[in-house]
Parts: sequence; structure tokens; C-alpha cells
Amino acid sequence: MKTNPGRFFEDYRLGEVIAHAVPRTVSGGERALYHALYPARGALYSSDEFARACGLHAAPIDDLAAFHLVFGKTVPDISLNAVANLGYAEGRWLAPVWPGETLRSKSEVIGLKQNSNGKSGVVWVRTTGWNEHDRKVLEYVRWVMVRKRNPGAGDAPDPVVPELARAVAAEDLVVPEGLHFEGYDYTLAGEPHRWGDYEIGEKIDHVDGVTIEEAEHMLATRLWQNTAKVHFDATNRPDGKRLIYGGHVISLARALSFNGLANAQMIVGLNGGAHANPCFAGDTVRAWSEVLDKAETGVPSVGAIRLRLVAVKHGAAPFALRGEDGKYAPEVLLDLDYWALMPR
Amino acid sequence: MKTNPGRFFEDYRLGEVIAHAVPRTVSGGERALYHALYPARGALYSSDEFARACGLHAAPIDDLAAFHLVFGKTVPDISLNAVANLGYAEGRWLAPVWPGETLRSKSEVIGLKQNSNGKSGVVWVRTTGWNEHDRKVLEYVRWVMVRKRNPGAGDAPDPVVPELARAVAAEDLVVPEGLHFEGYDYTLAGEPHRWGDYEIGEKIDHVDGVTIEEAEHMLATRLWQNTAKVHFDATNRPDGKRLIYGGHVISLARALSFNGLANAQMIVGLNGGAHANPCFAGDTVRAWSEVLDKAETGVPSVGAIRLRLVAVKHGAAPFALRGEDGKYAPEVLLDLDYWALMPR
Amino acid sequence: MKTNPGRFFEDYRLGEVIAHAVPRTVSGGERALYHALYPARGALYSSDEFARACGLHAAPIDDLAAFHLVFGKTVPDISLNAVANLGYAEGRWLAPVWPGETLRSKSEVIGLKQNSNGKSGVVWVRTTGWNEHDRKVLEYVRWVMVRKRNPGAGDAPDPVVPELARAVAAEDLVVPEGLHFEGYDYTLAGEPHRWGDYEIGEKIDHVDGVTIEEAEHMLATRLWQNTAKVHFDATNRPDGKRLIYGGHVISLARALSFNGLANAQMIVGLNGGAHANPCFAGDTVRAWSEVLDKAETGVPSVGAIRLRLVAVKHGAAPFALRGEDGKYAPEVLLDLDYWALMPR
Repeated sequence: MKTNPGRFFEDYRLGEVIAHAVPRTVSGGERALYHALYPARGALYSSDEFARACGLHAAPIDDLAAFHLVFGKTVPDISLNAVANLGYAEGRWLAPVWPGETLRSKSEVIGLKQNSNGKSGVVWVRTTGWNEHDRKVLEYVRWVMVRKRNPGAGDAPDPVVPELARAVAAEDLVVPEGLHFEGYDYTLAGEPHRWGDYEIGEKIDHVDGVTIEEAEHMLATRLWQNTAKVHFDATNRPDGKRLIYGGHVISLARALSFNGLANAQMIVGLNGGAHANPCFAGDTVRAWSEVLDKAETGVPSVGAIRLRLVAVKHGAAPFALRGEDGKYAPEVLLDLDYWALMPR
Repeated sequence: MKTNPGRFFEDYRLGEVIAHAVPRTVSGGERALYHALYPARGALYSSDEFARACGLHAAPIDDLAAFHLVFGKTVPDISLNAVANLGYAEGRWLAPVWPGETLRSKSEVIGLKQNSNGKSGVVWVRTTGWNEHDRKVLEYVRWVMVRKRNPGAGDAPDPVVPELARAVAAEDLVVPEGLHFEGYDYTLAGEPHRWGDYEIGEKIDHVDGVTIEEAEHMLATRLWQNTAKVHFDATNRPDGKRLIYGGHVISLARALSFNGLANAQMIVGLNGGAHANPCFAGDTVRAWSEVLDKAETGVPSVGAIRLRLVAVKHGAAPFALRGEDGKYAPEVLLDLDYWALMPR
Repeated sequence: MKTNPGRFFEDYRLGEVIAHAVPRTVSGGERALYHALYPARGALYSSDEFARACGLHAAPIDDLAAFHLVFGKTVPDISLNAVANLGYAEGRWLAPVWPGETLRSKSEVIGLKQNSNGKSGVVWVRTTGWNEHDRKVLEYVRWVMVRKRNPGAGDAPDPVVPELARAVAAEDLVVPEGLHFEGYDYTLAGEPHRWGDYEIGEKIDHVDGVTIEEAEHMLATRLWQNTAKVHFDATNRPDGKRLIYGGHVISLARALSFNGLANAQMIVGLNGGAHANPCFAGDTVRAWSEVLDKAETGVPSVGAIRLRLVAVKHGAAPFALRGEDGKYAPEVLLDLDYWALMPR
């Protein structure tokens, strides 16, 4: 058998480190595609000149493009037989990624817990992305529910559930080397609101909506070399729709949040996230945000803002999140919790 | 209110200069996408070697790609609340744009006229695009009908309607520094017809047709960071179709015109243009051209040709333009009037 | 008549060399698009670092991207009036193509045979692709059935049917200068199987399927500046579907074959190929391969493997190829025969 059947729950060992295949060199091509696939307008990721004025030598690729590139490589080893992508935690962007760099990924198995039904189990991995200088550029934990090869058979491993921080501590966020927001050009950035203008608890409706087409999410998902077949093969469902990669919704919602959060320039922390409901072509996606926290960083001109980013389908109630039963409303697609850097 | 509601007619002041947000560095990625989105085959924009043989140091990005990049930045400030894009005039390409350059845009309000119904008004702006060396690369006038925030209320500004040239004078066209067509390779360019082979009044049916998909025009429109929601949000119309950005039709028609005008290498002037009817996914677009004028330039090997470019939907009569009532035929999508440079 | 009506059978002369129009400079943009359009994951074409470890100075563009670029230029001269694309032979990749290079194409007419019905004829051409240093990077023979301008009229040319090799001889394959697979990283490449692990006659089902959208194949086909109108114009068929460029199916099947043939890094020979049935949007494409032959090369660490690559539509029987009548099964889209280089 030459083809990759994917790993099953039994195939993971606690502490095991999996080196993922297919390193990828990024160029301006990936950036152009990112900006064609999402309404991304962050000035720092769009303009070399703007990035230079912020102390970087050029515009890096978008924070979430780096995330998808690192994530995509893990799919054949981690989530090919996944039933569900359960959560994210302890994500940190450790260095910007610039065109010309080559990324690869590794994952360490940090938790295992078989489900009581004996058919599947939860696998926790800490994934790290590296550039060609062996510099770590990204790390995050995610956990997925993975099918067993032989349901019911074999001994379950001793359950190990890692203790994960509810949020990345502000002091652990990494401000990219050289970054500052002194003399920041709010006009070029698109909005006047600075870190001090946002209050904890404040909610922002990002107004705009984007209707998704099959071709778009497949182009995006392939670009990240994410091979999960549910995203590409229409014969998996009677209606011929393909399940949209959750990361596509993340990028779409983040780009929509420009309208109200144009100065939340760089994502540096991922505290948590849930893909609350599946997304399909034809859905019109809207987004709203809530300010969860604010913090200073080691750089005086750079503030950190912790945001909840919620993506919903058209028709959702204003600021829809959970019903009275505590469950996500059916129109909610994504509930993401992240830290971004913003001029003070 | 953190989000941008767009400007209304009352918000414009004569003489005001608006600096538009989100500068953009272009790369080979934008070019590749342009050539994937449109059947663009102009040799000078496709091959560094061909461009060098014409006196440039490398192939610039396509003339209309530069236009869309400059135009897209103006949308959040000029046309977010526009009812209609009424016209273009006095457009000039002042310098080619090469990969690596960073573009930004400014617009000066040069005309204001409230409509008699008191609900809206016409705003004229002269938009300029600049590279990172503060060199102006493009300028054009456009006018749009913009809603009033408070229909009927307030005093109308004194009406100022700018006098606009019916066409850019040939002597005001800018031939890019170094450009010449001596030793021009007609075989590599794709057609043998030179400037002298075209006669004023001549009409060319460009034969080919392209059927537009939703995914394509949205990718294009996002690539130019044009955020007008009508292009992206299917919930705006009962049929779920999205109004296609007029610039998408311009680029499509221009690319189709290669077949018969392969040597009309560089657009350098935009004399006028009307988006005669809306375009939607599923429409099959065809194009025809008429030679309106010809002129010499300061460079002996380089001629200027003034062309009407008309985009029509499949089913239009040959060379369809206006009906007996003087109105555009319903199948006409675009009526554009431009100057291009061509080997003599 | 300024537009190109395409050549008819009468327009070809034996021995004639046709220089094709529109040279093209490639960049990271073309690569990014290739990887967004197809699930391409070959490590050597994805990572500069991986390519360097294999003795190249950087990652070239994908083998088939080079093929499409060279092929696309031939369409206006060879296949605009083609009834059918009949076959390929004697294809060799002679040098990798790197971003920054400029490609152009020439074709020599090496065979002509009018059909007995007097309405059309078969034209054989040997096409060569060249970079800006006048280095030949690719060559292949293809033959097409082309309509006559005047069916029944005129004398048929003396029939000349070229003798074509059934397969490129292993000793004629060109291993790119510097390429070696010593110290090859099978983990990064994605699979452990080396040249020695494959047996002649072995068949591999590549498992995954991809459903094609109209927008995708049109983006791809335009990217290669292939202008054949059947791929773009929905008004050609009552059902509004566009015939998909056969090369799109080739690239899709090759990318799918990563799953089982991840180490078949570089295509260096094209022995033959048939587009067995037309492909349309909505088709879900799957692929299987058969090992036809194996050979050593002049480089000890580099083996050559000859593969049949078959693309089928969803619903095809396992390893579907031909029916009892010897004809291709209706679900078979492509039957390709190629040589690739693989670590020994």
C-alpha cells in the first residue's frame, strides 16, 4: 500500500514528534492570492513602505497566511481521519514570515484520551512552524477527534489531557523585532482608532458580508496544501457541497474585521477557537468582534488587544453567539479568541 | 461608531484632497493573477525580454492593473454610497508600474452639484496614483452620484461642474521614458498590423467571448482591494447575483481586443467611459473596437491610436451601441474611449 | 481582416517552422497559482531548500506548468480550428524553468495527412520551448485534426506520417544539471517509497478526488495564455458548460498522484497521451497509475520510472481503462504515459 491512509487514534504516542512533509517557499504570489481570496486590507501586510515605517524591512505575508501554511502541512498526519477539529490554544506568532522564506512544520503529541464509546479518541498536538534558518515562527496547540482503526479493540492509552492556558498571557506575546508604531500613519492605515480608543467589552459589527463560492475556498485550501478530501470532493455529500476548511472562515472573518479594526495590524496570539457550525458555498459570511482585554507590550508605541472574532451566516441576530441553552446559535460559524498588536 | 459608513454628498468640500488608505506593493503575484483572470496577452506586459527590446528595463504590470490598484483605494472614500458611476475623463498613465513598487492614491474634489430632487448629488474627483518615490503614475477624473445622508435637508453647495476635455490631447500623452518600437518583433507580439494599418472609422469585431463566473470577478475585485459590498454580498439581490465591478468588464474587454489589436501595447490615455448596463455572472462578454483617431508622439517609432472599446453581452447585434432613441442598447455593457501606443 | 481566424489544414507546409507569439516571464506568481489550482505537493517544486538539497539552486516551476506555458503559445497557430487533439509523443523536459525566465515556443510541421473525407487533415508538429538564453527547455510532438478552409477543394498534400517512438528511450532522458537524490529527505518529501520499491506492472489507486469548477479551469487555461474559445464561451453548448482544457486534467491527475507517488519528483519524458473523453465542470476527477518501466540514469542516486497516469470520473470501476471492445471506458478522461525521476 503506497498511499497514505492517514493516522488513526491508535497510531499516536504521547511525546512523539511528527515532522510534516512538503516544505514551502513563499513569494509575492502567495500574498497576491491571499489578497484576492480575502478582502484583506491590513496596510502592514499590503505595503513594503508601510511596513518599513513600522520598523520592519518589508511587508511580511499575512499572519493567517503563515498560520495556514504551517497548519496545512499537518493535515495528512493529524486530521485526515479526524471526525472534528475541537479547539486551539496557546498559539503564538514568534516571527513574521517574509517572501523568500521556506516553512516547514512539526507536531508533538501532548495529549491522548480515548472516548468512552471506544470508537475514537482525542489527540492534542503542539504544532510548530519553522523557517529555513531553523527559527520557530509559529506555535499552537490544537486537538482533534480521530477515529480508531479498530473500534472497540485494543487497550486505551492512559488518558493524558494537557493543561492549557485559557489565554496566552500578554507578557508572553512576541512583538516582532524592530516593530514600532511611532509616527504611524492612520490615514494610510484606513482608520483613526488607536488602542486607547477601544474599551474592554466593546462590540463592533463589521457590517460587510461576503458570499462564498466553491472555487474560492478550494483555491485557498489547496494553496495551503491542505489535502483533507472533504474540502474538494463533491461526491462526499448528496448535495454536492464541499465542507469549507475552517481556516477559510477564519481568514474571511479577520479580513472583514478590517472595517472597525483596521489598526489591529498583526495577530500575535491565538487563545482559542471553535468552528461552531459548518460553512458551505453559498453562505454569506458576516463578522463581529468584542474587545476581551487590552495590555501593554515591551514596546511603548505598541499595544496588545485581545479580541473575540465571531463569523456568522447572513440572517444571524445582531452579535449572535449562543442560545439560552448555552450552545452556539445555528448561524454562528466561528468563535475565535486572539491577540493583535495595535498602535497606542 | 468604529466602522466606515462611507461619505455622503454633504461630506465633500470643493478643493478638498482626500488621501486614500492602504498602500499596496505589487509583485509578480499580481501579474500572474491578472493574466489568470483575463485573457491578457500583450507581449510587453507578459515578457521582460520583449519589454527590454522596447526600451524598458522589464515588463511593467498591465496598464489596467495599475488603474484598478489606484481606483480600488478610492472606493471607501468616494463610492461606498454611490448610486452610479457616471463617467471618466482626462485619464493619463504617466509612468509604468513595475513589480516592487508601492502605490497609493489621492483624490481632489473638483466639482459638486446637488440633484434637483435633493436626495443625492454628483461629485467630481481627480484621482492621482503615486509610487513610493512620490512619482505620479496615473491620473484621471471620475464622477459619481452619491446619496445625501439627510435627503432634502441642508443647503446645497454652489454647483461647480468642472470643464473636462472631451479627449486627452495627443500632445499630452506621456510616452514612457525609454520606450521605442524600433525593431519591434511583430511575430512575438502576435499580429502584423502596425499603426499605419489602422484607419480612422475602422471597426473590429474581436470574435471571442468569455463567460463570467462569480468567483472570478470577486477574486479580481478583491485583488484591487475594492470593497464595494454590491460586488460580494449575494443577499443584496433576490437572485443572489452580485453586481460585477465595472473595471472587471473593462479589463475583460481590453484583453479580448488583443485579437485584432495585439499591438495596441500600452494604454496611456482614458478619454471617457460609460458602464452602459450592469454585468452579472453568467453573462458571456464579447467586444468590438472602433478607431476614433490617430496621432504621432514625440517618439518616431511610437504612434498613438484612439479607440472606442465596446463590451457587449452575447446576443448583441454586430457592432451594437445605441438604439434609435440614442440610448445604449440593452446588451451593451461598456463604452470606453482610450488612447494606446502602437508601433508605427 | 485584423483578427486571427486560425490556420486551416491547407495553411500548413511540411518543414515549415512557426514561431509562436507572446513570450512569457514567469515568477513566483505562476507557481502560487499552480499550487492553488492543483493539489500539487511535490517537495522539489514547493521548496527552494528542498531543491537545493537535491543539487538545484532553487525550486523550478512545476514540470507541467512549463509544459502548459509552452503549449499555450501554440494554440492560436496550431489548434484554433482543431477538431481533436489526437496525441503526444517524444516529449522531453530538457532543463528546469525557474522564476525570472522568459519562455517562448516554436513548432515545426513534421507531418501532414488529409483525411479521406476531404474535410480535414492531421497535422503533426514538433514544438520546442526556449528560455531567454536560447536554451531549449522542452520539446514534444503533438498531432491534431484540423478543419480545411475549403472542404473538398484543392489537392491534398502528399501524405507524410512521421515515425514516432512509442516511448522516449531511457538513455535520452535528460537529468537536470546538478540534480541528485543523495541524502534525499523522504520525510519532507512525504512518502518513504523509493525507485526500488516500485515494480513494473504495479498499480496504484491515488484515492482522492477533486470536483472541478468552471472558474478554476478557466483561471488555469488563461494563465497559460491558451485562447481556445471552447474553454471560455458558454454559448458554444446548449448546457452552458465549457470544454475543459485537456492540460487541466493532466495537471490535476498528476497532482492527485502525489498520494502514492510523492517521490516521482520531476517529469522528464512524455511518451504518449490521449484525452479519452471530454471533461466538464462538476466532474469529480480521480486518478490511478501503473508502473510501465524503470531505468537507471547517468546519475547513480536518480532513477527513472515510466508511469501510466489515468484520470477517471467518479463512478469509474477500479483501475478503469478500456472496455471489451478495446475502446476507452466512458469514465476515462486521460491516459498519459510519462517518465519521472525518483530517488533510488
